[in-house]
Amino acid sequence: MTKPLIQIALDQTNLKDALVVANNVESFVDVIEIGTILAFAEGMNAVSTLRRNHPSHIIVCDMKTTDGGAILSKMAFEAGADWITVSAAAHIATITACKKVADEFKREIQIELYGNWTLDDAQRWVDLGIKQAIYHRSRDAELAGVGWGPEDLTKMRQLSDLGLELSITGGIVPEDIHLFEGIKAKAFIAGRALVGEKGKATAEALREQINRFW
Amino acid sequence: MTKPLIQIALDQTNLKDALVVANNVESFVDVIEIGTILAFAEGMNAVSTLRRNHPSHIIVCDMKTTDGGAILSKMAFEAGADWITVSAAAHIATITACKKVADEFKREIQIELYGNWTLDDAQRWVDLGIKQAIYHRSRDAELAGVGWGPEDLTKMRQLSDLGLELSITGGIVPEDIHLFEGIKAKAFIAGRALVGEKGKATAEALREQINRFW
Repeated sequence: MTKPLIQIALDQTNLKDALVVANNVESFVDVIEIGTILAFAEGMNAVSTLRRNHPSHIIVCDMKTTDGGAILSKMAFEAGADWITVSAAAHIATITACKKVADEFKREIQIELYGNWTLDDAQRWVDLGIKQAIYHRSRDAELAGVGWGPEDLTKMRQLSDLGLELSITGGIVPEDIHLFEGIKAKAFIAGRALVGEKGKATAEALREQINRFW
Repeated sequence: MTKPLIQIALDQTNLKDALVVANNVESFVDVIEIGTILAFAEGMNAVSTLRRNHPSHIIVCDMKTTDGGAILSKMAFEAGADWITVSAAAHIATITACKKVADEFKREIQIELYGNWTLDDAQRWVDLGIKQAIYHRSRDAELAGVGWGPEDLTKMRQLSDLGLELSITGGIVPEDIHLFEGIKAKAFIAGRALVGEKGKATAEALREQINRFW
């Protein structure tokens, strides 16, 4: 199993602040994500600017694509995204459209697991050749105090067993990494935890735990 | 029952083209929507520019908010949106967060019906005080030839009976308007059908059918 990557989610409401954060964290993260908030705040200029500034990083655009899949994915891939996110709630025709565009660009899509998705849905994504999904506590669920539970971990293992690599997010802290042992983890995603004075130390602690369990 | 409005969805990939379309249609539409594609292409500048250009129209930002509800809705309302869309797949905590911000701004949110939502979910939205939802064939489903069926119409009637006003979209043509008779229709949404030489005539035909059935 390959070692999980560390991903920063840039959820600033303006590009200027996001660029500062990206510069500060680039030495210790593998993946730089233009979060939905930043993408809606600044448009595709956020993607192309971060692509230019960080040519060696994996760039993700978190669009949570739910419709208009062909146009949205083309837009983000043309701006320089390596991966884009597609909502699990999207019609299978939308997901298929995104996958087709990703194949043309030799990029990837990640299914973002929101809503009442089922394992049958997940099998359909795998059948389309999709390799990645994102599992998380929603930001708002997290704020509401909903923690990582056995139900989350069971679902993650089921998805992993289907062959999906999971990027895991939602208040990720080093002490939780062991919970995900044995799961095909593509990346651990954090935002504020990687920012500021303690950011580098947090990334190092995450990396240490990753090296212990993968 | 109030008369359904006519809404243009601006799904251009750049603001310049979208502004031209908005200017061309403003005399015969009630609601101007910054579509997800345009919002991701140009960011909130698209919302604030259209707000400025069309001060008397209802402005909708189609964000399909799925997470980070408080920040995203604040961003769009501050940019001048009257309504924003929130995905049915969002966690109820996210939907609650959006509704709270909307109340503070005296604006509204619309639940966009994607994914495996249930009538129990819909009841929860109504319980939160939410008044609007958007029912559609997905653009991609439409392209795949999935039409308005009895299943769609039954679901719409159930949602309408719960008290939700529906904006209806997905290849809307005047000849289909009669299908929705008796439903609390807030708006009929069209994009390309309202653009170009035949746009005004299409809007007039839609209005005629609306006047016949509401």
